[in-house]
Amino acid sequence: MSQIFASIITIGDELLIGQVIDTNSAFIAQELNKIGIAVKHRLAVGDNWDDIWNALDETSKHADIILITGGLGPTADDITKPLLCKYFGGNMIMHEPTLQHVTHIFEQILKRPMIERNRKQAEVPDVCTVLKNEKGTAPGMMFEKNGKIFIAMAGVPHEMKWIMTNHVIQLIPQKFTTNIIEHRTLLTAGIGESFLAELIQEWELQLPSFIKLAYLPNYGMVRLRLTATGYNKEELITQLDKEFKQLQQLVKEYLVINEDLSMELVVSNLLKKHKKTLATAESCTGGYIASLITTHAGASSIFTGSIVCYDNRIKTEMLGVSNEILTTVGAVSKETVELMATNIMKVMNTDYSIAVSGIMGPGGATNEKLVGFVWIAVASREKTISQSYNFRFDRSRNIQLTTVNALNMLRKLILESTN
Amino acid sequence: MSQIFASIITIGDELLIGQVIDTNSAFIAQELNKIGIAVKHRLAVGDNWDDIWNALDETSKHADIILITGGLGPTADDITKPLLCKYFGGNMIMHEPTLQHVTHIFEQILKRPMIERNRKQAEVPDVCTVLKNEKGTAPGMMFEKNGKIFIAMAGVPHEMKWIMTNHVIQLIPQKFTTNIIEHRTLLTAGIGESFLAELIQEWELQLPSFIKLAYLPNYGMVRLRLTATGYNKEELITQLDKEFKQLQQLVKEYLVINEDLSMELVVSNLLKKHKKTLATAESCTGGYIASLITTHAGASSIFTGSIVCYDNRIKTEMLGVSNEILTTVGAVSKETVELMATNIMKVMNTDYSIAVSGIMGPGGATNEKLVGFVWIAVASREKTISQSYNFRFDRSRNIQLTTVNALNMLRKLILESTN
Repeated sequence: MSQIFASIITIGDELLIGQVIDTNSAFIAQELNKIGIAVKHRLAVGDNWDDIWNALDETSKHADIILITGGLGPTADDITKPLLCKYFGGNMIMHEPTLQHVTHIFEQILKRPMIERNRKQAEVPDVCTVLKNEKGTAPGMMFEKNGKIFIAMAGVPHEMKWIMTNHVIQLIPQKFTTNIIEHRTLLTAGIGESFLAELIQEWELQLPSFIKLAYLPNYGMVRLRLTATGYNKEELITQLDKEFKQLQQLVKEYLVINEDLSMELVVSNLLKKHKKTLATAESCTGGYIASLITTHAGASSIFTGSIVCYDNRIKTEMLGVSNEILTTVGAVSKETVELMATNIMKVMNTDYSIAVSGIMGPGGATNEKLVGFVWIAVASREKTISQSYNFRFDRSRNIQLTTVNALNMLRKLILESTN
Repeated sequence: MSQIFASIITIGDELLIGQVIDTNSAFIAQELNKIGIAVKHRLAVGDNWDDIWNALDETSKHADIILITGGLGPTADDITKPLLCKYFGGNMIMHEPTLQHVTHIFEQILKRPMIERNRKQAEVPDVCTVLKNEKGTAPGMMFEKNGKIFIAMAGVPHEMKWIMTNHVIQLIPQKFTTNIIEHRTLLTAGIGESFLAELIQEWELQLPSFIKLAYLPNYGMVRLRLTATGYNKEELITQLDKEFKQLQQLVKEYLVINEDLSMELVVSNLLKKHKKTLATAESCTGGYIASLITTHAGASSIFTGSIVCYDNRIKTEMLGVSNEILTTVGAVSKETVELMATNIMKVMNTDYSIAVSGIMGPGGATNEKLVGFVWIAVASREKTISQSYNFRFDRSRNIQLTTVNALNMLRKLILESTN
């Protein structure tokens, strides 16, 4: 059994002028991975006949399955359907079940008159298998040629997702005997990519050829992903888990979690698990830590609130940082963030807190305190821990790095105090 | 003068398993568009020698400029640099200025020992032009072959962005004679794309063929961009400005600004201009409005701070929203946000305030208040204005829409009170 490869073709001018960020490809790739299909290429082309035609020719040289999204809408620039009809040597016919579905949508849901343009949505090449699109008017289509399959789906994300999960994921295993693909991902923090590589290089060299390691660095964190490919699921998982366990051991000191989770979710989950609450007192991050935590549903069970004390006056009036401290050691100091951390916990009556104060740039630096200089404190009812950092680079990255490191310090404190 | 085409190749296994959403391509495409280069394809391949090699062969058949990101890191899975060296027939040499830059980063900024792997970051093929990467250790590289240029950049977004804006955008016009391209962009809010299209359709139909209109919708706002392409700069600008003036007149009622600025910058600039200050009281946005404003340098002159009152208790204790109000009309009500707005202004002693409270989802809805239901208030010393909205999308989109609408309401209030 050889590895089955897929290629993804996304069609639309909006993808080539940078107007739209393609999220469809990532979703399709994730779904295919789950059933053991590796994606070999992703190609984006405009609404242009020759470019789409060439893309079909090119990708089918290297892939067994070609997934196509976009260009199936009712407007003039949507040329994918007639092109596919010609490419696979078919004739356009009216597909009655689709026509009924489209009619139903217009009459019962949109309550709008259906025009010729909408009726045409129900026409398909007579050489395809129609994949019903419950979520919209453009049906999915499957074509077969020289042992390869081509599947065209609407580009609207929720329509594409419906067709993927309700048709494609079922159909592919019927057409191909696929490899098994398994992933294991862990998250590290506080160590750079190259030092991590140094730390695990001996282990990496002895990895069996069917297990691949990838480094995914992002703002002070590095994710490590192991991918195993093979035929015997049981053996694959045994080997993969054995290597994954060794990897966890090697990076132990920097290990955040042995899953593919964001730092704020790791911390939120810990708080949920122990039924504890958090408040933040943010100067230089301007509310970013709070906003990150509240991005996720269910934050209200662990997050009480925040005081963003951008102006020093607010640090004094609301967080008990005296004028004396501000004029002697300054707003970016151990004393300031420790007071902010203990006082926000009292004000908001929480179990834990985070406090940050720093110089994010480009302005605000002094001779002693450069851009990127930050003090972070985390506190529990029993303990306050603080640390200073020197981040480099620009404002936005300094904010990100402050946030990740603050969350990581809190994570360690929670682990320590709940042990 | 013929149209110059570019292709973008993004490299990395993470792009093919759907772990990372590619935002680099959209940025690159936007930047190229500004200098008159159209993108013909975008191709993503894994960290695989043959696939990268084939991608270079294929894309250079159809494009004049090939932009490559990813695979330039210091670890074993980063094979782009040796591959490019071989592809262009070069030898790897140490590039002294890059070595000095990398050394400086390690010695002066990271204050960590530099290992062999880091030194290797400064090695480049002797057949390339090095493009300094101020933001990281992997330098950009430009190669030329058969009249085509190939530019490789780090995949880390802020490094890629720096190399694009500081090198690539300057270099390309030196290598190719491109058309003159001029853009004019304006920002509208409070009107959907299709209604906007309806409003300006007659004007759009009479646009000369060398001026193109693009709709760039984004979270409750639509940017309209006019792009003129031609040879005679003076004539081009005259015509473009004439059309741009007409467009501004047509969308007057919804016009935010006749520049390509974000909503929070429009509001920040207004506050700066009138030397006024702002505080926010945020429930459902969890600090997002504050964090957005403080993303931009110089925020401290106009932004005092925020109380994120995620827990209703904080609304009562710190913002004077009585228990009676919370139990009768509730936390998502006109009364609540108006009290939050007037009280945060007093607490933080500012000239203006924003207050928001809503149900962002997926949980929290009641029979009367569905997911996406939000109350927003903005206040000055003289006046408080409040309004409810029904957004009904997912959590992240609801937060974005609440933020944009709150900022737009404040913008109108500032304009009114400073007139």
